[in-house]
Amino acid sequence: MAKEHVQIFDTTLRDGEQVPGCKLDTESKLIIADRLDHLGVDVIEAGFPISSPGDFHSVESIAKLIKNATVCGLTRAVKKDIEVAADALKHAKRPRIHTGIGTSDSHIKYKFNATREQIIERAVAAVAYAKTFVEDVEFYAEDAGRTDNAFLAKVCEEVIKAGATVLNIPDTTGYCLPEEYGAKIKYLKENVTGIDKATLSCHCHNDLGLATANSIAGIMNGARQIECTINGIGERAGNTSLEEVVMIMRQHPDLHLDTNINTRLLYDTSRMVSERMGMVVQPNKAVVGANAFAHSSGIHQDGVIKNRETYEIMDPHDVGVTESAIVLTARSGRAALAYRAKNVGFELDKKQLDKVYTEFLKLADQKKEINDSDIPTLIEAANL
Amino acid sequence: MAKEHVQIFDTTLRDGEQVPGCKLDTESKLIIADRLDHLGVDVIEAGFPISSPGDFHSVESIAKLIKNATVCGLTRAVKKDIEVAADALKHAKRPRIHTGIGTSDSHIKYKFNATREQIIERAVAAVAYAKTFVEDVEFYAEDAGRTDNAFLAKVCEEVIKAGATVLNIPDTTGYCLPEEYGAKIKYLKENVTGIDKATLSCHCHNDLGLATANSIAGIMNGARQIECTINGIGERAGNTSLEEVVMIMRQHPDLHLDTNINTRLLYDTSRMVSERMGMVVQPNKAVVGANAFAHSSGIHQDGVIKNRETYEIMDPHDVGVTESAIVLTARSGRAALAYRAKNVGFELDKKQLDKVYTEFLKLADQKKEINDSDIPTLIEAANL
Repeated sequence: MAKEHVQIFDTTLRDGEQVPGCKLDTESKLIIADRLDHLGVDVIEAGFPISSPGDFHSVESIAKLIKNATVCGLTRAVKKDIEVAADALKHAKRPRIHTGIGTSDSHIKYKFNATREQIIERAVAAVAYAKTFVEDVEFYAEDAGRTDNAFLAKVCEEVIKAGATVLNIPDTTGYCLPEEYGAKIKYLKENVTGIDKATLSCHCHNDLGLATANSIAGIMNGARQIECTINGIGERAGNTSLEEVVMIMRQHPDLHLDTNINTRLLYDTSRMVSERMGMVVQPNKAVVGANAFAHSSGIHQDGVIKNRETYEIMDPHDVGVTESAIVLTARSGRAALAYRAKNVGFELDKKQLDKVYTEFLKLADQKKEINDSDIPTLIEAANL
Repeated sequence: MAKEHVQIFDTTLRDGEQVPGCKLDTESKLIIADRLDHLGVDVIEAGFPISSPGDFHSVESIAKLIKNATVCGLTRAVKKDIEVAADALKHAKRPRIHTGIGTSDSHIKYKFNATREQIIERAVAAVAYAKTFVEDVEFYAEDAGRTDNAFLAKVCEEVIKAGATVLNIPDTTGYCLPEEYGAKIKYLKENVTGIDKATLSCHCHNDLGLATANSIAGIMNGARQIECTINGIGERAGNTSLEEVVMIMRQHPDLHLDTNINTRLLYDTSRMVSERMGMVVQPNKAVVGANAFAHSSGIHQDGVIKNRETYEIMDPHDVGVTESAIVLTARSGRAALAYRAKNVGFELDKKQLDKVYTEFLKLADQKKEINDSDIPTLIEAANL
């Protein structure tokens, strides 16, 4: 069965950059955009051009630079926003305007003080206007996660008629459960007339820790684009992590879905974005955290030394990590100690290992981590 | 419809402490255990007593201290392990021994060089032996995520007969998709004779970013215990985050599931564990990250100021965060600027706001974040 392609829409430079304290200058944005292009993302959302002159300049510069990926700019469903975005994107090889409006009752009432009919009118007008500047127009139905499915389907139908090529279904508040988000995508796939003319896109937030699972539920139900960021950064608890959804598709061949991502660049790209933004990646971050491939407990270390696949489902090399670490702590067993001792030149027989292990536990109960440089001291203490 | 109770089994001090470089001394473990008891967890997994004298001492001290929660100690399916754990737990008000063995073909072959029949024999012997010391015996089927369901059901049946009160079904390598993990729990619920005598427990790892979603899929299909850690710490990419699963159950009343957790202690507990272990929590961590309730983009800020629920699905107070932050950056709009200016004593009319906003954008394009102390300078620059 041939694999179907899922587009990776990277919004590190737009939704990701909305992190408090993480604003990037144009130079950093260009460096990151260039890397994203090499990483193989299909779309780079470069910014929100109307929001500030600096952001306009960044989007314009990225549009000039990028050779492969589509370059996208965000707008509200407002004429002036769309004109400014079109201007910022005019040099792009593959420009996309991303426009939209809130569709949940909460957004319609509190943000727009409008009716459902007025929202559809504004959505259609925005898409039609964007279409006068570019061929590729993505529409977002903000707070789609809390929007009534029948109304959402109606909005989708109308914007497809107006020329939308991609339909972004954001779980803006990060509230949906995977079953619910998957069912929403399924409903649209089955109930929107003309849905085959457009690509459904998942845009999920991580407020309850479910952004990745929701995006996967989306593509399992017919979406063919995921909007995500490097390290899952973004507003509040952030967006879907690019590295997680990409590795899930890669490690689960039964999904018959694939991306263009060169996974060996994931780790380096994670580090680059973290450093440029000053946003730490926690050590236990999936796929790209410093400990993602580190084993410290005795039971696990013993297993990994016998056969890597007992505890590792990914080859660290596939994401650009040089090797899985066997870290020595008070939870480590004899197998790990022997492995590390051998690495630094000491081959221990069973009896010797028992003695050194006793010394090791004494020291390990005091120190957080035992380094290679402690090993000769331990061997001396054991009086072999 | 009455809510069913889901037990929270906290393993911060056992699986969590397996993080390289995060070993805790007994004093820190006692302080954290005491806090977990106040937080309202049902079970505290205090350590792996046979692993080192220090860990034995910690488990013993925690067993003496804890008034409410069950205190649990880990063992392999090995007599000596079980004896040492029973000894460490002898002062516990509610002791539990957690014993088990690998059940996947990969573990049976590479770790144990055994047959399926031998694994069942060792599992049953371990549970029966543990049962001679304590009433409450939890059995883990290591690598259950990759274990054939029919064999797993057979193992479960046999250990229930031997007296197991809880069946832990770990996705040890973090490989399962939520659908798959949920289906596994459903299969056991429907195919294990005697399953009503035991509680099924979810123990998920986050290697692909799915630990939370898998645990929720588990309880939606009949499991009634979740094994988790504060901040999701643990081996490699860590365990299920306690704060995420607890808040999902709380924010999704339709699940009709509840826990005993006092959610207002979540934020403080997260900080305490992070500081004691020296493990940073990334700002975009769900529920407890520094930015989890911070809004910086103009569109979002405007919405939150008009009505909190347009972008927030949780009340920050419910997890112990004092207030949601409106952070000023180059992506902020007039509404946020006016809100913050008013907070520091400047009421601006529409015309004044336009002028100050122009100055604000100039400064915000250069600085990462605009502080309250910048506001008077901006107002001066605007020549109001």
